[in-house]
Amino acid sequence: MPSPIESVLTAAREFLGERLSCAEADRALHGHGQDPYPPVPPAAVAFAENTEEVSRLLALCHAQGVPVTPFTAGTALGGHVTPVHGGISLDLSRMDKVLAINADDLDARVEAGVKHRALAEILKEKGLFFPVDPGSDSSLGGMCATRASGTATVLYGTVRDNVLGLTVVLADGRVIHPGRRVRKSATGYDLTRLFIGSEGTLGVITEIQIRLRALPAAVSAAVCQFPTLADAVNTVIAVQQASIPVARSELMDEVEMGACIGYSGLEGFQALPTLFFEFHGASPRSVQEQAEATGAIAAAHGGSGFAWATAAEERARLWKARYDGFWAGQSLIPGCTALSTDAVVPISRLAEMILGAKEDIRASGMTAPIVGHAGEGNFHALILLPPGDAQAQEQAEILDRKIVARAMALGGSCSGEHGIGLGKMEFMREEHGEDALDVMRAIKHALDPRGILNPGKMLPDKEGVLLSGKENQESFIL
Amino acid sequence: MPSPIESVLTAAREFLGERLSCAEADRALHGHGQDPYPPVPPAAVAFAENTEEVSRLLALCHAQGVPVTPFTAGTALGGHVTPVHGGISLDLSRMDKVLAINADDLDARVEAGVKHRALAEILKEKGLFFPVDPGSDSSLGGMCATRASGTATVLYGTVRDNVLGLTVVLADGRVIHPGRRVRKSATGYDLTRLFIGSEGTLGVITEIQIRLRALPAAVSAAVCQFPTLADAVNTVIAVQQASIPVARSELMDEVEMGACIGYSGLEGFQALPTLFFEFHGASPRSVQEQAEATGAIAAAHGGSGFAWATAAEERARLWKARYDGFWAGQSLIPGCTALSTDAVVPISRLAEMILGAKEDIRASGMTAPIVGHAGEGNFHALILLPPGDAQAQEQAEILDRKIVARAMALGGSCSGEHGIGLGKMEFMREEHGEDALDVMRAIKHALDPRGILNPGKMLPDKEGVLLSGKENQESFIL
Repeated sequence: MPSPIESVLTAAREFLGERLSCAEADRALHGHGQDPYPPVPPAAVAFAENTEEVSRLLALCHAQGVPVTPFTAGTALGGHVTPVHGGISLDLSRMDKVLAINADDLDARVEAGVKHRALAEILKEKGLFFPVDPGSDSSLGGMCATRASGTATVLYGTVRDNVLGLTVVLADGRVIHPGRRVRKSATGYDLTRLFIGSEGTLGVITEIQIRLRALPAAVSAAVCQFPTLADAVNTVIAVQQASIPVARSELMDEVEMGACIGYSGLEGFQALPTLFFEFHGASPRSVQEQAEATGAIAAAHGGSGFAWATAAEERARLWKARYDGFWAGQSLIPGCTALSTDAVVPISRLAEMILGAKEDIRASGMTAPIVGHAGEGNFHALILLPPGDAQAQEQAEILDRKIVARAMALGGSCSGEHGIGLGKMEFMREEHGEDALDVMRAIKHALDPRGILNPGKMLPDKEGVLLSGKENQESFIL
Repeated sequence: MPSPIESVLTAAREFLGERLSCAEADRALHGHGQDPYPPVPPAAVAFAENTEEVSRLLALCHAQGVPVTPFTAGTALGGHVTPVHGGISLDLSRMDKVLAINADDLDARVEAGVKHRALAEILKEKGLFFPVDPGSDSSLGGMCATRASGTATVLYGTVRDNVLGLTVVLADGRVIHPGRRVRKSATGYDLTRLFIGSEGTLGVITEIQIRLRALPAAVSAAVCQFPTLADAVNTVIAVQQASIPVARSELMDEVEMGACIGYSGLEGFQALPTLFFEFHGASPRSVQEQAEATGAIAAAHGGSGFAWATAAEERARLWKARYDGFWAGQSLIPGCTALSTDAVVPISRLAEMILGAKEDIRASGMTAPIVGHAGEGNFHALILLPPGDAQAQEQAEILDRKIVARAMALGGSCSGEHGIGLGKMEFMREEHGEDALDVMRAIKHALDPRGILNPGKMLPDKEGVLLSGKENQESFIL
């Protein structure tokens, strides 16, 4: 009598062939994302090439109660892709086709494995862009699964606001297509938004209908430095409150800026708290107007060197430094890894929040440069972990918890954009309350009654209620 | 042995007192909204004044299996508020307090009974506005329940995009608070968006945390008339495709414009297809830029008399005519009522759609002026029903179905903003497919296992699966 996992593998091999791999290298690669948690290799990796294959695989896993954890770019920071209960890692990275681009309706349909930088290149040629750009080169499927955002969220919103519809494979293999190619619809429960941010626990997203924008006719970038972090943060707050439609509004503290100057060769800047702005407009006049209004606010807060660049190369240089901030930060301690905090507060509390976080960092004795999507009240402290320092990992987790607790106390949320995965499960109860968690559990149970989809993630178990199939864990690891 | 409904009424009277009414006038008023469907009076009307009362009432109804249908402004067009299975009509109109306005964070918290025009007056004094403005003076609770939009959706989005969080009473009386006062969050299932648009079938929304905007520093309106409807629609399409950030972009056909000229005394205009635009900007220069770019596109499509008005009084006069369009249309046949169609298509199909709808109207021999939130591809034909003409009602429903079917065939949705209620249930299967409907049913069952919340709405019954508590219908009508 074959075990459940053996039954699934035998049946799946019939249609996946070589694309069902038990090779150690594949299993090791799919045992973790970009996270600091212990890796768990899956029993096997399935490389699906279309929705039909995902459907057939899920039907098999559902029938046998075998866990399935979706994996695409593997860039999740919170342990989302780690198959903690073994089973199958479902790799969608080969589903990387842009299926349709409708310039007339400003929308497109892509497979879940399309990565956002490749998509940006394709769209650029048509004068279009998709405004959600997380720091890593994530897949669109992963971005939907984690409700991702990025540097332009302050103007254009998150993935939630820029997806029109999905193709989703349900736990038992049924395929649904929530949403349509329309800008709004008032017909039934918003399943599109339910799957967005569900981190692979309710269904597997295989296709995405995205909303596009025309590339702005005029773009300008500006960088401004401040004597204190409070001045920089207060400038962001004032710009938001003045309703200047900045497209990007990014903060670096003096530690991060120092790292960037070294790492990216940013000349002419000092290791001071710094804001990076970008303005989009229909004409040079309109971006000039925005830049001037922002510059005036910055000057009133002691900002200096508010220089704006409309030349594409100069803008690219400045923004590359910002995008490389993760690596620049890590360059401060050679060979280190990093734990990235992620919290968000109402913007009026952002100065208090970040100054508090700086206090926490100081008290911990650790190095943790801060970058922030400040326009939405979202920021990250990049807690550096010296190589091979087990104690540092523990200290980092304590510091992370302290910063998150501070954000929650200010009316914030424990994750602005990285999601829950394994890392933030402990905050779910405080953030949502037990009754709302029970609603989420009821939905999870309704859609995935056998608990096969990314088990052990997002929803903390309730005493006596088993959602994650833990009882079967052993049998799903070959 | 008291019946279930008698048990509920006896227990509820203890905390609601006189605010639990069985008076015929109250019951009659709560038997329908602004819809053409047969009214059904509830057994009683409960006027709740706070979340606690809603919670206690729902706990009672849940225990006894008694239907509860929320009712606030009573402006729903699709039969949403008709208690088709009797039971209690839960009136939230007395929960009309604005609980907090945070100008610093551009958000506010309101009770479900606050109406959007009263809210607009309060916010205006603080230089703020909430950008969702349905044609009728709906309540914020009702707007959330139906995923409402309005004339400014093309720039600012629907209720879905402008609500940060909710207070919701679940079927069994538990109270949850999905969402927080932050601009984005990636923590758990998006319950806020699940309840938005659920039409009172999953829970009762009692408080809403809304996102606000600062009143634009500069506003300008423009009206432009076209020789043909195709020219007008193609202008809207071209303006959208040029990514001009118009705040409002409204269409009237020649029938509706003729009615408006008479009804609102709009001098200087002809009964021609007409577009109403509004532009919002940070400066007069920025709105001028938008208006000029739009005017150029209109001229290229044969538009004439593109006149833009920055004076508040002149703008108010033009927009009042647009807002009065519903009444103006009805003035074409004295004493008539109207069935308002509501469909939405991808904008590239809008000309084809509206010209097709005009064909359908002509073939029907009925009078049906067209107005449209054309910027999002959404439009309404106001099918006029001469007083006491039963045949006209039937013809109107046939015409409505024809127009909706046309929209669906063009990749559209059967409702852009009015919602499903009773009127659009027949299109749910075609729009979503049976598997997606099953997901909705599973969610409904998970959150409202006894089917007490607004039964008989939105989700069509599946053969053999009873969701609506129909078997008990008789016992819930006193």
